[in-house]
Amino acid sequence: MSLIVQKYGGTSVGKPERIQAVAERVKRTVAQGHSVVVVVSAMSGETDRLLGLARAIQNPPSARELDVVLSTGEQVTIGLMAMALEACGVPAVSYTGAQVKILTDTAYNKARIVDIDAAPVREDLALGKVVVIAGFQGVDPNGSITTLGRGGSDTTAVAMAAALKADECQIYTDVDGVYTTDPRIVPEARRLDRITYEEMLEMASLGAKVLQIRSVEFASKYQVSLRVLSSFEDGPGTLITTEENIMEAALISGVTLNRDEAKLTITGVPDRPGIASAILGAIAAANIEVDMIVQNTGADGSTDFTFTVHRNDYDKALAILQQSAATLQARNVTGDRKIVKVSLVGVGMRSHAGIASRAFGALAAEGINIQMISTSEIKISVVVDEKYAELGVRALHAEFGLAGPA
Amino acid sequence: MSLIVQKYGGTSVGKPERIQAVAERVKRTVAQGHSVVVVVSAMSGETDRLLGLARAIQNPPSARELDVVLSTGEQVTIGLMAMALEACGVPAVSYTGAQVKILTDTAYNKARIVDIDAAPVREDLALGKVVVIAGFQGVDPNGSITTLGRGGSDTTAVAMAAALKADECQIYTDVDGVYTTDPRIVPEARRLDRITYEEMLEMASLGAKVLQIRSVEFASKYQVSLRVLSSFEDGPGTLITTEENIMEAALISGVTLNRDEAKLTITGVPDRPGIASAILGAIAAANIEVDMIVQNTGADGSTDFTFTVHRNDYDKALAILQQSAATLQARNVTGDRKIVKVSLVGVGMRSHAGIASRAFGALAAEGINIQMISTSEIKISVVVDEKYAELGVRALHAEFGLAGPA
Repeated sequence: MSLIVQKYGGTSVGKPERIQAVAERVKRTVAQGHSVVVVVSAMSGETDRLLGLARAIQNPPSARELDVVLSTGEQVTIGLMAMALEACGVPAVSYTGAQVKILTDTAYNKARIVDIDAAPVREDLALGKVVVIAGFQGVDPNGSITTLGRGGSDTTAVAMAAALKADECQIYTDVDGVYTTDPRIVPEARRLDRITYEEMLEMASLGAKVLQIRSVEFASKYQVSLRVLSSFEDGPGTLITTEENIMEAALISGVTLNRDEAKLTITGVPDRPGIASAILGAIAAANIEVDMIVQNTGADGSTDFTFTVHRNDYDKALAILQQSAATLQARNVTGDRKIVKVSLVGVGMRSHAGIASRAFGALAAEGINIQMISTSEIKISVVVDEKYAELGVRALHAEFGLAGPA
Repeated sequence: MSLIVQKYGGTSVGKPERIQAVAERVKRTVAQGHSVVVVVSAMSGETDRLLGLARAIQNPPSARELDVVLSTGEQVTIGLMAMALEACGVPAVSYTGAQVKILTDTAYNKARIVDIDAAPVREDLALGKVVVIAGFQGVDPNGSITTLGRGGSDTTAVAMAAALKADECQIYTDVDGVYTTDPRIVPEARRLDRITYEEMLEMASLGAKVLQIRSVEFASKYQVSLRVLSSFEDGPGTLITTEENIMEAALISGVTLNRDEAKLTITGVPDRPGIASAILGAIAAANIEVDMIVQNTGADGSTDFTFTVHRNDYDKALAILQQSAATLQARNVTGDRKIVKVSLVGVGMRSHAGIASRAFGALAAEGINIQMISTSEIKISVVVDEKYAELGVRALHAEFGLAGPA
């Protein structure tokens, strides 16, 4: 008998019938002898509806009052979910974030969980009840309602699992697991049985939008085994866990594609200390996040500097860079929106040399020119012309045999 | 400078623009130097929407979980109202029933208020804030959310006014006060400036649906001055207060009409002790409420027994009465759905003889036959054929000069 936290997102609870289907799934888990805590999001569309009401009155809305309004979305779902469970014969009780004392800081709209008092939940579980908890919300030390920001329900689920020392935290979504790459690009992409937290973090931040990065960080910190599964069909999903729990790590776990970036280059910058910080400082001051950064020093004592930003920030970043170029007496500023970032992720590459050269070779064999390269211990990213996006992903996916059996 | 509690119902806060209009009204009250606590209902239609969702999942819904779901309606409104106040420059803070500690018993869906901790509200008021409180809801000693039943927001407002010893509790509605009778029947009906709690209770229970009976009882118990006003136009409304606060009580305050009752008669019942309780006991056992009861003892040692019930209960009551008639060997059972109850209400009638005979005379002058009579200290009710409904009201309204100046 295990203690399992199950989290269901907005789509999974979007209609009364879907809530009933989730209740039946929880009932099956209970019938297998497990104790279950269910964390739910607002019904799909509800958070946007509430946000619309708030903005019709005050824009931007008062941060504290927005959380009062938004938190009702999940509160409705917990009540309905507890009803659905009781209706199918499963004793259940619901709790809001404030009731179950999910204590957060006072950063309304993006609060961080500080502590959870899990004792009352344990009592209910001991009485044979399923405990239904509102995701996405908490309460600050003054008793004001807070919310954790978009996707915060995943974090609630992981935090509850950590506080309860649950055996597993299951995140039910509209996909049946984490894939070696986007199946719309590579139809033979394979669902991964297991993946490490680090790999998942790289995959998530690189564009595989299955889980909130924050919840994976939380799970990694508290060693909570996280499983991504489909709420619409049965299947084992993908387990996200520590490296020790994975018998033999695969060389490469996946290939990701990010189409959201744009590239900027400033050339002929006098090469002296403080140049990088002068250039990037101006960008950061405009609240623009920079992803990849590459610097090359030329023979003439000047340096070229290339970085990527979100495409939405491209125009703003270009204008700032042109100002910097004038100030720094740089030679030229260029930019390109039509680029993509293709990345190879795998903890296995840590202990295997030559992964990078195999990857570059595979791209070269398809005639794909690499514009930028960035590497970490478990990731290799390249920037290429966006016309090569799918080809690049397919080339790497095939090179590392990701379509084969695990 | 006074402390005023203002309550706005679902229609008054039914759309963002209306919430903004209420905020402007509160701002004017604040500008006059008053401290203001605002109690709000759910936006119109919202409670029914939530009830529909709940019933689609479990019917009847779990009482505890239904309150979790329904209480979100008011929670949305308090957040939006606080935003609207801040947007027009009035510092404001919102509280749910649980946050402001409106402690109730555990009778979900129809909880009663046990206590309110008004200290935090006083602190906010002292800081110059408007405090916005969710009506209709509270929290039980276990921390579970409760609701007070339909119309409970009026009760919340009165209870807050009592706890804060507020100078006045203003209930904003879609009518501009309490009238001497229904203006749709008597166009010259007059708005009452002042009326006693007792009169208002009789008026409310007799069909003038301006205020929840329970909130008037509460106001009477704690001597809270209650004012009914329109949220759409300015005006003094009607003050509901103690008899001592009304310089000279009017003889008659109003004429009410109730079209919801039906009449049942059992004749030739052997006249012996326990008969009334035998007949009414069977009716009560079926959860049917009885309103007027009249018993006449005949010369032959038998008795006739007539009472009224809600029209919806008529068929059920008739069937039960026919069974009782057989058991009790009564002569006959008859009934009539087509009756109405016309009532005259006024504390002044306590000290004035002859009101009843004047009323009966006025009805007789119009050829209206009286079928039943029931009186209390401040009320005279008659049952007449429903075809005389409007005529009866007009006759009494004219007889007692209610259309004239107050």
